Amino acid sequence: MSEFDVIILGGGPGGYIAAERLGHAGQKVLLVEAVALGGTCLNVGCIPTKTLLNAAKTFHHAQHGAQYGVDGGSVSFDWERMQTWKAEVVGKLVAGVGVTQKRAGVTVINGHGTLMGPGRVSVNGETHTSRHVILATGSEPVMPPIPGTGGNPHLVDSTGLLALEAVPERLTVIGGGVIGVEFASLFSMLGTHVTVIEMLPEIVPFMDAGIAPMLREALTGIDFRLGCRVTGLDGGTVAFTTAEGAAETIDGDVVLMAVGRRPVVRGWGAEDTGLEFSDRGIVVDDRLRTNLPNVWAIGDVTGRSLLAHTAYRMGEVAAANILHPEAHRRGETMRWNTVPWAVYSNPEAAGVGMTEQQATQAGHTTLSATVPGYMSGRFVAENGFRAPGGAKVIVDADTLQVLGIHVLGSYAAEMIWGACAVLETELDLHDLRQVVIPHPTVSELIREAAWAIKA
Amino acid sequence: MSEFDVIILGGGPGGYIAAERLGHAGQKVLLVEAVALGGTCLNVGCIPTKTLLNAAKTFHHAQHGAQYGVDGGSVSFDWERMQTWKAEVVGKLVAGVGVTQKRAGVTVINGHGTLMGPGRVSVNGETHTSRHVILATGSEPVMPPIPGTGGNPHLVDSTGLLALEAVPERLTVIGGGVIGVEFASLFSMLGTHVTVIEMLPEIVPFMDAGIAPMLREALTGIDFRLGCRVTGLDGGTVAFTTAEGAAETIDGDVVLMAVGRRPVVRGWGAEDTGLEFSDRGIVVDDRLRTNLPNVWAIGDVTGRSLLAHTAYRMGEVAAANILHPEAHRRGETMRWNTVPWAVYSNPEAAGVGMTEQQATQAGHTTLSATVPGYMSGRFVAENGFRAPGGAKVIVDADTLQVLGIHVLGSYAAEMIWGACAVLETELDLHDLRQVVIPHPTVSELIREAAWAIKA
Repeated sequence: MSEFDVIILGGGPGGYIAAERLGHAGQKVLLVEAVALGGTCLNVGCIPTKTLLNAAKTFHHAQHGAQYGVDGGSVSFDWERMQTWKAEVVGKLVAGVGVTQKRAGVTVINGHGTLMGPGRVSVNGETHTSRHVILATGSEPVMPPIPGTGGNPHLVDSTGLLALEAVPERLTVIGGGVIGVEFASLFSMLGTHVTVIEMLPEIVPFMDAGIAPMLREALTGIDFRLGCRVTGLDGGTVAFTTAEGAAETIDGDVVLMAVGRRPVVRGWGAEDTGLEFSDRGIVVDDRLRTNLPNVWAIGDVTGRSLLAHTAYRMGEVAAANILHPEAHRRGETMRWNTVPWAVYSNPEAAGVGMTEQQATQAGHTTLSATVPGYMSGRFVAENGFRAPGGAKVIVDADTLQVLGIHVLGSYAAEMIWGACAVLETELDLHDLRQVVIPHPTVSELIREAAWAIKA
Repeated sequence: MSEFDVIILGGGPGGYIAAERLGHAGQKVLLVEAVALGGTCLNVGCIPTKTLLNAAKTFHHAQHGAQYGVDGGSVSFDWERMQTWKAEVVGKLVAGVGVTQKRAGVTVINGHGTLMGPGRVSVNGETHTSRHVILATGSEPVMPPIPGTGGNPHLVDSTGLLALEAVPERLTVIGGGVIGVEFASLFSMLGTHVTVIEMLPEIVPFMDAGIAPMLREALTGIDFRLGCRVTGLDGGTVAFTTAEGAAETIDGDVVLMAVGRRPVVRGWGAEDTGLEFSDRGIVVDDRLRTNLPNVWAIGDVTGRSLLAHTAYRMGEVAAANILHPEAHRRGETMRWNTVPWAVYSNPEAAGVGMTEQQATQAGHTTLSATVPGYMSGRFVAENGFRAPGGAKVIVDADTLQVLGIHVLGSYAAEMIWGACAVLETELDLHDLRQVVIPHPTVSELIREAAWAIKA
């Protein structure tokens, strides 16, 4: 048994950043990870997905460059090499997290941790104590109890799909959220015939209702079946009921179940310690405090936002509040409205703040404008005039404060942090219009949208 | 003769944006353009260059994708098609500017305008009057009087290089500024053997002294000759004196003169109207007023910053101050420190605010950190572990206010506007660290640099 300042359960993005920050601040930190440092994001999530997507995009862009003078008709891809590269990238980045922890003086234990109560965690049969505990146990894919799913060799979750030995000819994706759309785009670029079955009337439901259909239409070559409910699987055949109530089937070689992820709230003591959790996940306030004293929860396990960068920020907020009781007065709280999202499909999409629907629901009268991709010279040069893309800016009609910025097009994920800065600093439309954006960039679409608002 | 509210001399980015804003605000505007709407940027500058660079990058990435599983060994490019695409892009965007002007109710005259005095401009032999005049006559390439330059068929300026009928085998670039570096990168990716001769000890002199050598080393395959002074040309042979004082020559098929651009301050009446100009250009204040009443100057002709997006902002500031005498109190002034720059080479580079050298010179004690590209998971996935790249953040040691942000790596030009927003809103280091940047992105390098500062 040993004594720490802080014990962290889970070495994903939330856990490892919290450990790093606390370690560098001189705290004695224990980081407990059952599988591999880096968590879902680094091992079987963001990083491997984006690694494969980059190769697929390079292949796709070369194949489709005839318009601007690149003849890539004979370019090919090597799935095995793509997988090897993915493994190299993941392996080295995971090792890098280990090095970072060491440099921060963090003790890392590989094992399954169990919360015994405030300040007490057992790992591998040993109990460790601490002043604070941070829970960062992450999330796991949801596998709904649909008939035919149990033991079905054609069925995979995202982890299984990342590890396929060959590119399938036909892929059926159940679920049109971010994960489903990214994999659909990946395999579609590699020549797979992809069908996406989504229960709701539109893909990626958290997206602005003006942007989501643009993204769907941009994902040419993917067959979207919206408003359809899957009723059962028989091998690679998926049976579903259409929006009109008809029974249909689709044959595939591989079926991806991507209907969502759920917080891992069981199996590590939460039930026995009186920790409050809802259907969504562990209940936390904006400083990431749970109902138990000096027990904090961050990342996917809170169910607040299942994104790695949210987990980073949560890890930092928890660390800052552990280090300084007054940290929340210096901005160290979660501001959920400034957390961006990004979809790394081809084309990319990203956004931050409210959708127009959310803004209206929250009582705002809104002003907004959506401009097409061809308003940006760089967008045109790189994609052509009719390529799908655009940007939408939403402001409050009375105060003109910027409420949300949403982008569809190349570089969306890289430009969106500027919009996060705009929301963090509560700029209004006039302020946003005064920010200088370099020319020629696709980012200028945001500026064009800001100027297109009639205010 | 006709009467306007505002006459604008020059239809480049500064002129056309000013015209558009004023037109939509109900002003009667005359826009006078001697050559083509869009000016240098759209016709023979930013847009054609970036159009060709995109094709070259697609070709290059496909050729070099073996590491991550793309076999592009047989990919090829078609220079003629690249040129046709460039012409299509430019043609349609120029037409688009015309449509935009029409929608804003602006009168456009094709002709050479001459300033006769405040409120008086003659075009094609006719005199027009107005309350305000905006001068936006732009800049032109400098062709220094070096022996052997006159009538030399091997010698081109940037306009000539953009129009080459074939990709040269050997290109010599005189001048390692942004224009020289972008063209060097473009042709180097297409297989040309490129030599860059730069008089100063480092390329792109306005860049942070920590980043510029990283960019130079990243531009593998280009032969940089630093500290060398060109003494003469003989056909495609360039004679120069090395930093050590030795006389050398380099043979090329094409020689690009890219030693800079200068404001066009002559030939349109400036001399005869008492307009104040310095060696740099027309003298303006931060509202873009010249010494003459109701005569404004914007864009390259002021010599303040020869960038299209600076011209946009200047056009907007001038327009706002013409429309509202109190506009400067609402932020409608030039804040030069928030104007970004970007180099669209492979890799890209971009920055905003002070370099560390400028900050020190301005009396700041600085804190800064530079982090390598491999600190970003996306950077690693797309470029590998040893690829050149990185980000640098500079803050004032006392106030921690962010003074400058500089980036080398893919997407640099698209992510830098976030840094502009950070500088516009005068964030300090703690504020910057609290901005959520999506994961995984190359933009996260900025966050890593912010955290790497010991403060």
